Amino acid sequence: MRPRLVLFGDSITEQSFQPGGWGAALADRFARKADVVLRGFSGYNTRWALKVLPRAMEGAAAAAADPAAVTVFFGANDASLPDRVQAHQNVPLDEYRTNLRAICAYFKEQWPSAAIILITPPPIHEPARIRDIYGDDDPSRQPERTNEAAGSYAQACITVGKELGHPVIDIWTKMQEFPDWQTCALSDGLHFTPTGNKILFDEVVKTLASIGFSQERLPSDLPLYHEIDPKDPMKALGA
Amino acid sequence: MRPRLVLFGDSITEQSFQPGGWGAALADRFARKADVVLRGFSGYNTRWALKVLPRAMEGAAAAAADPAAVTVFFGANDASLPDRVQAHQNVPLDEYRTNLRAICAYFKEQWPSAAIILITPPPIHEPARIRDIYGDDDPSRQPERTNEAAGSYAQACITVGKELGHPVIDIWTKMQEFPDWQTCALSDGLHFTPTGNKILFDEVVKTLASIGFSQERLPSDLPLYHEIDPKDPMKALGA
Repeated sequence: MRPRLVLFGDSITEQSFQPGGWGAALADRFARKADVVLRGFSGYNTRWALKVLPRAMEGAAAAAADPAAVTVFFGANDASLPDRVQAHQNVPLDEYRTNLRAICAYFKEQWPSAAIILITPPPIHEPARIRDIYGDDDPSRQPERTNEAAGSYAQACITVGKELGHPVIDIWTKMQEFPDWQTCALSDGLHFTPTGNKILFDEVVKTLASIGFSQERLPSDLPLYHEIDPKDPMKALGA
Repeated sequence: MRPRLVLFGDSITEQSFQPGGWGAALADRFARKADVVLRGFSGYNTRWALKVLPRAMEGAAAAAADPAAVTVFFGANDASLPDRVQAHQNVPLDEYRTNLRAICAYFKEQWPSAAIILITPPPIHEPARIRDIYGDDDPSRQPERTNEAAGSYAQACITVGKELGHPVIDIWTKMQEFPDWQTCALSDGLHFTPTGNKILFDEVVKTLASIGFSQERLPSDLPLYHEIDPKDPMKALGA
């Protein structure tokens, strides 16, 4: 049976099957090798995610086998500032760490053989956040998220990953290595453009490969067209 | 548990998670409501599909429930002409009908409550097929597929759907209603551009809605962000 890859996260996961999205790109890359299962919940932080976790994972795994891997991609909402308009999404840094540990522990218990891949929150482009929320560039406005706060949560995510021995994709740092990431990689200062999606996709593919989950190493489900002998097609198909 | 939508077909299904693809668009549309399962097999005709059917469906359904619907989208390869370069993919028209019936019977037996949606082969733009295979426009060349042959298989698919009482998407006819479909909807005279994908996506969404599988009627998996009270977020989450 095909291995499964479960994508668990907030809106950046929920929207990952939009055109150019990183989730769809994974499903396409592993089209004959693995099933990609989408479990994205827009607006959710780790506190809410932890609360609904068993319900969120209903049907995500097959009865017979653990998923091969699960991505855990939260923090963008946790890092909303506690004194700004999205305050109700904020989760304090200490609790974010605790929640991430609890989410990992849940997966470890439910799916002992699944690799857990943590993804840090992405960087934030503050002027675009102000425009997104207030519709203008009014300099008296303050963004509900800052890049600095997102960076603290990214660092916390890295710490938890190291502590538990799970691979971490530091998309906060990685994305900022790209020129003009603020507008090339982010559409509204938070969510991803196709370019931003591609940056994350490449990192996920690299991390998956490091745990043996790659196009090269995964077998194809049923013979590929070029493996089927035109003179005796049914032979390859087990006739 | 989320209902499932299984996409079973040839390369036009296998490639449906490429950017702009109809499969990814379905996964995005139902991101919080249903799981889309990809079972596309490039180059396969109904004879090969029937041969591998039980293996192809491993893991496609959950243990506890039938998928809500399955799309069956074959015929583009069956309709390859028997005296041209892709002759080994050809399946005679009568056998195509018989195979489609057998595929439907299999799903009916395995998943009694699943809706079976047949999709006809798409139209063919012959000059583009010649270019795709021979790399030039040499008028002495003959295409391996013709639009007329594809039309016969489309008609056969419609007949089988009527006979068995399954909805049929006649993409052969539908696509040809669009101006410049030859180059706007098809990339190589056979496979779909993003525009072609959108045409099919719209038809699949309409057909799914006709069997009660729609954004409006399917419940969301866990509370949506706007349903969560900022003053008491945990209330909606069942705390």
